[in-house]
Amino acid sequence: MSLIVQKFGGTSVGSAERIKIVAERVCATRREGHDVVVVVSAMGDTTDELVSLARQVSRRPPPREMDMLLTAGERISMALLAMAIEEQGLDAASFTGSQAGIITDTDHGRAKIVDVKADRIREAIAAGKIAIVAGFQGVSTALDVTTLGRGGSDTTAVAMAAALKAYACEIYTDVDGVYTADPRIVPNARLLHVVSYEEMLEMAATGARVLTLRSVEFARNHNVPLLVRSSFSYASGTWIKEEDERMEQAIISGVTHDTSEGKITIQHVPDVPGIAAKVFRTLAQEGLNVDMIVQNVSSAGLTDISFTISRDDGERAVEIITRLIPEVKAEGVTYDDGIAKLSLIGAGMKTHPGVAADMFSALADAGVNIEMISTSSIRISCVIREADVTTAVRVVHDTFGLSEESVIRETHPR
Amino acid sequence: MSLIVQKFGGTSVGSAERIKIVAERVCATRREGHDVVVVVSAMGDTTDELVSLARQVSRRPPPREMDMLLTAGERISMALLAMAIEEQGLDAASFTGSQAGIITDTDHGRAKIVDVKADRIREAIAAGKIAIVAGFQGVSTALDVTTLGRGGSDTTAVAMAAALKAYACEIYTDVDGVYTADPRIVPNARLLHVVSYEEMLEMAATGARVLTLRSVEFARNHNVPLLVRSSFSYASGTWIKEEDERMEQAIISGVTHDTSEGKITIQHVPDVPGIAAKVFRTLAQEGLNVDMIVQNVSSAGLTDISFTISRDDGERAVEIITRLIPEVKAEGVTYDDGIAKLSLIGAGMKTHPGVAADMFSALADAGVNIEMISTSSIRISCVIREADVTTAVRVVHDTFGLSEESVIRETHPR
Repeated sequence: MSLIVQKFGGTSVGSAERIKIVAERVCATRREGHDVVVVVSAMGDTTDELVSLARQVSRRPPPREMDMLLTAGERISMALLAMAIEEQGLDAASFTGSQAGIITDTDHGRAKIVDVKADRIREAIAAGKIAIVAGFQGVSTALDVTTLGRGGSDTTAVAMAAALKAYACEIYTDVDGVYTADPRIVPNARLLHVVSYEEMLEMAATGARVLTLRSVEFARNHNVPLLVRSSFSYASGTWIKEEDERMEQAIISGVTHDTSEGKITIQHVPDVPGIAAKVFRTLAQEGLNVDMIVQNVSSAGLTDISFTISRDDGERAVEIITRLIPEVKAEGVTYDDGIAKLSLIGAGMKTHPGVAADMFSALADAGVNIEMISTSSIRISCVIREADVTTAVRVVHDTFGLSEESVIRETHPR
Repeated sequence: MSLIVQKFGGTSVGSAERIKIVAERVCATRREGHDVVVVVSAMGDTTDELVSLARQVSRRPPPREMDMLLTAGERISMALLAMAIEEQGLDAASFTGSQAGIITDTDHGRAKIVDVKADRIREAIAAGKIAIVAGFQGVSTALDVTTLGRGGSDTTAVAMAAALKAYACEIYTDVDGVYTADPRIVPNARLLHVVSYEEMLEMAATGARVLTLRSVEFARNHNVPLLVRSSFSYASGTWIKEEDERMEQAIISGVTHDTSEGKITIQHVPDVPGIAAKVFRTLAQEGLNVDMIVQNVSSAGLTDISFTISRDDGERAVEIITRLIPEVKAEGVTYDDGIAKLSLIGAGMKTHPGVAADMFSALADAGVNIEMISTSSIRISCVIREADVTTAVRVVHDTFGLSEESVIRETHPR
């Protein structure tokens, strides 16, 4: 008998009807003989509604109180799920983040888990109960209620699975799993059966919305096998786990895209040491996260520095850079929010030269201009025009034959 | 500088707008130099909405999970109030029942407070903060979240005031205070400036909805002065406190009425010892609360036993009695849900004979038939037809001149 952690997101528990369906699913797993710990998010739009209420009473809600407010959301969904499970004849008990022993730092709104003291969860399991745990929340070392920020419920689930040494952490969502590309853009995108942690990290970092970077990192660090699957179907989903010599290895796992970033270029900066450091340290100090950075080759002692940044932060970044212009002796700064980032990800890339060349050729043949390039050992990312993104994703997906399993997968020698 | 506990009910915090108004009121009290602890209920219909959700997923929601669910309500209102107070420039922090140290027994849904360990509240006050405490909820000795049942937020406020030795516990509600009768029935009903605990207990027990019996009992037991006032006006409200020789004493404080009960009569029971005990013990074991009990004089060795009970429990009570009929050798049982209970309350009644006679005459003159009578040293209650209740309340209110302060109040000799 193994222990399985199942996490259900806001859409999966979006109504009383949906909660009953989730309860059936949880009970089925329990009846198969597994111990089950369930982690839930707040129902559907609850969090948005609570944020809206906060904005009505306060221009800048204090983070401690915002956390107190938002954690009401999971409290509702978890209690309802426990009721729905008991209605089906099995024992259940719900636990807040605090009761479940999710201990965090005191950084309200984006707290980090520092410890998991899951004694009450272990007791509930030992008593034959299905334990329901509030996602997204914890209690700080100062005994205040905290939230874990975006994707927090996934992180709770992974942390619980790690603490309880679960066989697997199943992430139930509104899609069937991880695809070779966004199926809304590429209709013949294929569901991946298995992806390594490293590949999933690159995919999450480059636009795949199915899992947050943070929860995948947590899973990798604690070696928790993840299974992403739909709460709306019984499709088998996608496993995310340690790369394994015996598993079939894909050269390329998928194509991702991201249209949430803009590009900032600092023009004609003197090509002397310290300029880039100055720019990016200042941005970091202001709390702005920069994604791709490219510095072009110098001509006549002057160079351009370009980087991408979330469009939400674009305006602030331009202001900051503008103030820096005299100091770094730049000619000016431009901001372009009409870009998209296209990425090709695959663990097999490391041992297969020529992937980048094939990708660039395919884009060129389709008339898509590449504005920036950045790579890791298992990823190639290009910045292109946002208007080209659909064409680009399709042509790259097609070039690498990602819709056909047999073509792009090879069995690794045992 | 004294400490004041202020409690705001669901209507008072029913919207973001209302919460801002409450925040202003709290801040005004703080700026007058008082330390303030605020106890809040859930916003408006939140509790009803949560109960409705529970019913959608479960025919009989487990009490532990029901408590987990319902306590989300105060969490929302208290966090919003803390935000609204900070928005006005004062420091505030909200605390769940558990954080505020409201320790209860394990009787979910109607838990009793067994201890108040208000250390975190004292710390918050010492740090210059306004402490916001979730009403209605606590944490059990088994570390589970509990609720205190109907009127629970008032009880929380009184318990906090007792633990913190507050100068007063102000109960803000949607009426101006305690009236000599229900102003919807008696337009010239008068607001009472002060009422003793004993009188308020009798009024609460006989239909006055402004405070629950339980919170008044708690206040009396811990000698916490209560001030009931409106959150919608700055009217001075009604004080409820220990009877004081120096205070003006009313012979009669008010008339109350209650149309929520029905009358059950067990007909022609043998007038032998043990019958009444058998009947009422059985009802108590089934968890049914009986209010007035009247046994008529025996004729030919047979008697009728009548009692009143909440209409919600009427049907069950009749079933139980029907099963008892063979055992107690009764002739039958009748149920009448067309009754009302009319009560006259006043601490001065003890020393003024003739009050009952005046009341009965007034009712007779108005053609109102009295079906049952029950009295305490400061109360006379009559069961009458529900159809007569408006006439009866008005005529009794008028007979004792309750709308005119000068007539019914006498200054007690100092």
